[in-house]
Amino acid sequence: MAQKPSIPKGTRDFSPEEMAKRNYIFDTIREVYKLYGFNQIETPAMESLSTLMGKYGEEGDKLLFKILNSGDVLADFTDQELLEKNSLRFAAKACEKGLRYDLTVPFARYVVMHRNELTFPFRRYQIQPVWRADRPQKGRYREFFQCDADIVGSDSLLNEVELIQIIDEVFRRFGIRISIKLNNRKILSGIAEIIGEKDRITDITVAIDKLDKIGLDKVNEELASKGLTQTAIDQLQPIILLKGDNQSKLQTLKTLLANSEIGLKGVSELEYIINKLDQSTLSSELELDLTLARGLNYYTGAIIEVKALDVQIGSITGGGRYDNLTGIFGLDGVSGVGISFGADRIFDVLNQLDLYPKESIKGTQVLFVNFGQKEEEYILPLAMQMRRSGISTEVYPEAAKMQKQMKYADANRIPYVLIAGEDEIKEEKLTLKNMISGEQKKLTIEETIELLLNR
Amino acid sequence: MAQKPSIPKGTRDFSPEEMAKRNYIFDTIREVYKLYGFNQIETPAMESLSTLMGKYGEEGDKLLFKILNSGDVLADFTDQELLEKNSLRFAAKACEKGLRYDLTVPFARYVVMHRNELTFPFRRYQIQPVWRADRPQKGRYREFFQCDADIVGSDSLLNEVELIQIIDEVFRRFGIRISIKLNNRKILSGIAEIIGEKDRITDITVAIDKLDKIGLDKVNEELASKGLTQTAIDQLQPIILLKGDNQSKLQTLKTLLANSEIGLKGVSELEYIINKLDQSTLSSELELDLTLARGLNYYTGAIIEVKALDVQIGSITGGGRYDNLTGIFGLDGVSGVGISFGADRIFDVLNQLDLYPKESIKGTQVLFVNFGQKEEEYILPLAMQMRRSGISTEVYPEAAKMQKQMKYADANRIPYVLIAGEDEIKEEKLTLKNMISGEQKKLTIEETIELLLNR
Repeated sequence: MAQKPSIPKGTRDFSPEEMAKRNYIFDTIREVYKLYGFNQIETPAMESLSTLMGKYGEEGDKLLFKILNSGDVLADFTDQELLEKNSLRFAAKACEKGLRYDLTVPFARYVVMHRNELTFPFRRYQIQPVWRADRPQKGRYREFFQCDADIVGSDSLLNEVELIQIIDEVFRRFGIRISIKLNNRKILSGIAEIIGEKDRITDITVAIDKLDKIGLDKVNEELASKGLTQTAIDQLQPIILLKGDNQSKLQTLKTLLANSEIGLKGVSELEYIINKLDQSTLSSELELDLTLARGLNYYTGAIIEVKALDVQIGSITGGGRYDNLTGIFGLDGVSGVGISFGADRIFDVLNQLDLYPKESIKGTQVLFVNFGQKEEEYILPLAMQMRRSGISTEVYPEAAKMQKQMKYADANRIPYVLIAGEDEIKEEKLTLKNMISGEQKKLTIEETIELLLNR
Repeated sequence: MAQKPSIPKGTRDFSPEEMAKRNYIFDTIREVYKLYGFNQIETPAMESLSTLMGKYGEEGDKLLFKILNSGDVLADFTDQELLEKNSLRFAAKACEKGLRYDLTVPFARYVVMHRNELTFPFRRYQIQPVWRADRPQKGRYREFFQCDADIVGSDSLLNEVELIQIIDEVFRRFGIRISIKLNNRKILSGIAEIIGEKDRITDITVAIDKLDKIGLDKVNEELASKGLTQTAIDQLQPIILLKGDNQSKLQTLKTLLANSEIGLKGVSELEYIINKLDQSTLSSELELDLTLARGLNYYTGAIIEVKALDVQIGSITGGGRYDNLTGIFGLDGVSGVGISFGADRIFDVLNQLDLYPKESIKGTQVLFVNFGQKEEEYILPLAMQMRRSGISTEVYPEAAKMQKQMKYADANRIPYVLIAGEDEIKEEKLTLKNMISGEQKKLTIEETIELLLNR
């Protein structure tokens, strides 16, 4: 029975061209991760719901895809339980498994489960899809890919330095100009501390962020409307107006935060990282940005965010340090720091700037035209020889009309076509046609291979 | 709150070493697929249940992982519907999506959905996990990986020839000795036809398969017990006793099936494939095997199966031709032929025979020992230089005890360690220690890079 097929909303098929582009992105990231000694792991798509629930806040719990238990699920329920129609409580009993929501919680679970096999510091990377029952919209999907690298079991700030070097190297390879923004949760805590408004970190950073758009007066108005005292707002002025290069910002912060132990700790962490990176030759600009407040509920030290300079789009990579990653699973005292490349947004940026290297998206190199049985016998061993030389080769599978075969080569962007008719067979040669220039040459198989390998 | 974490039964975490081995398998298969002009696609993990249900038989429907709809699921149900406690009917309404069960049905769905963008014949490959709520047991998982290649929209037998060449090439690269077994559904139909037992194909092939184990008399007894007439059994004798090389088997079959049009069609198809492959230089043996009856309910032409010669394990690759793949989704007349490598079993075979090339599982090449701030300043730019040369390099992130750092290198099987103390820094050199031989050398950074790249 015929049905019009479709796929679930928020999910995508990837065509050959999209796959080639995506593989280029994943391969580039993977290669750089490997150069820095990160090891790949993979975890199952399904995790026990007990592993996932409560790790992403109440909102996150709702966005988990839950898998109905197999077998006669309803048999386990009393009439009473069903008639309550409490969908949440029902799901808690009818579903033991859910789809992974990110790569961080499964990684924490992995570290705890395998702690006896691991040597710390453990450097792992992981590139896998995650699923969220979010409302789909432009650029936001229910199935999307994360590319994470984390180091656990080391407090050294050298890890932050290397992760930023990785970010720099990856985008240098992509040819995407970026700004790497840096902040430190401890500095934000210090600021809140000295103005006596510990719970207002988010309000403060949101307001500061608007300075360029709405001006100082409006920022101060907003802070007042959030309930900050005039004294607190006055104390905040030098922070809101913080300007200059990273070094001068650091000096100003040292003075401003002189009375906050945690604040000064944050400044000295940032200073270490920035100084180490100044020594190395980064391609990207690095900017101390106090408005950076992502992941405030879990980051405890460095906060990292990457903006593309030539495309209007949100953050394309982010990360930071989180203490006690594995505490939720009963293993305390394991600090972690990590980054995550946003593959889907990077895909969009590379598309907009048209930065894919031609090599990365090349498919079949050459198509043998098929004239029938006799010619097939001549070309099949030659096709084999070309493949053994590493050339991606197709033989058109039937003796269709020449025009149809050419159309096939065109549609699949195959750059060369090989023709072997009576003449070529007699001379033990092939006619190579360049599908772009239209140019034709009669060549031996060895000459053909040489030409295709060196083009 | 601490909880002992675990993963759902039948699923697996993959460690760095396992990932390296698995990547070697996937990369090898991918490379050969690409050499033959196959294009990669990916489809979402979740499909609409309407796409999946009814495609794998009643048993298959039960093995689908179903995803509970988001939101207040039970609100859509009447008390009556719930109190029925009909779990199947419940799931049909409470779950719109399921996890993909194989790659073939999603591919058929893909071809129908994208038919206007595709040029036929369409050659695609796809390497992704699939999920089945099967009872987990040794070697059988609830999440496992399939590596499929299919050509749709071409009846040419050249496709079968190329798929078998691909199988041969992949296992040649792995170094696994195999036997490729070939059959044709039309021959089985022909046999059933000439003995007047059209519905007994399975019984017949199962019985023939036991010849070596139980002998001719027992085979005939079994056939009789299945209800075959004595005449039918008599007619089957030359088929049961079919022996010799492929060519002589083909000649015998031509005589035996002289009165069956479909049978002769099958023989001539097989003959074409075998003759074309005899011309090429296969590394593996190719055997016409009438007992091969996999996928009888969907294969319509060639049936292919691969057995490892040096390890006792089931089929490690299989495939065949199926007419009208996309008919279930309303697009008729599209024939397909494909193969699927069993990655998990190949993993086991490579492990048992210890065939992984060393290169394929190498991780970090060299670790810089960390003595503290001053030494860090010396080694960080050198580490960068090594990475730019393509050498996977780690810097131990803190100035831990030498013994701890060496233990780390050992545990992670890092073959070289670089030491830079006061002397080395003064001489602008590095001490390179081979972790296996224990040998040490003082070298410049250029000499170190040269040595590591060429080892």
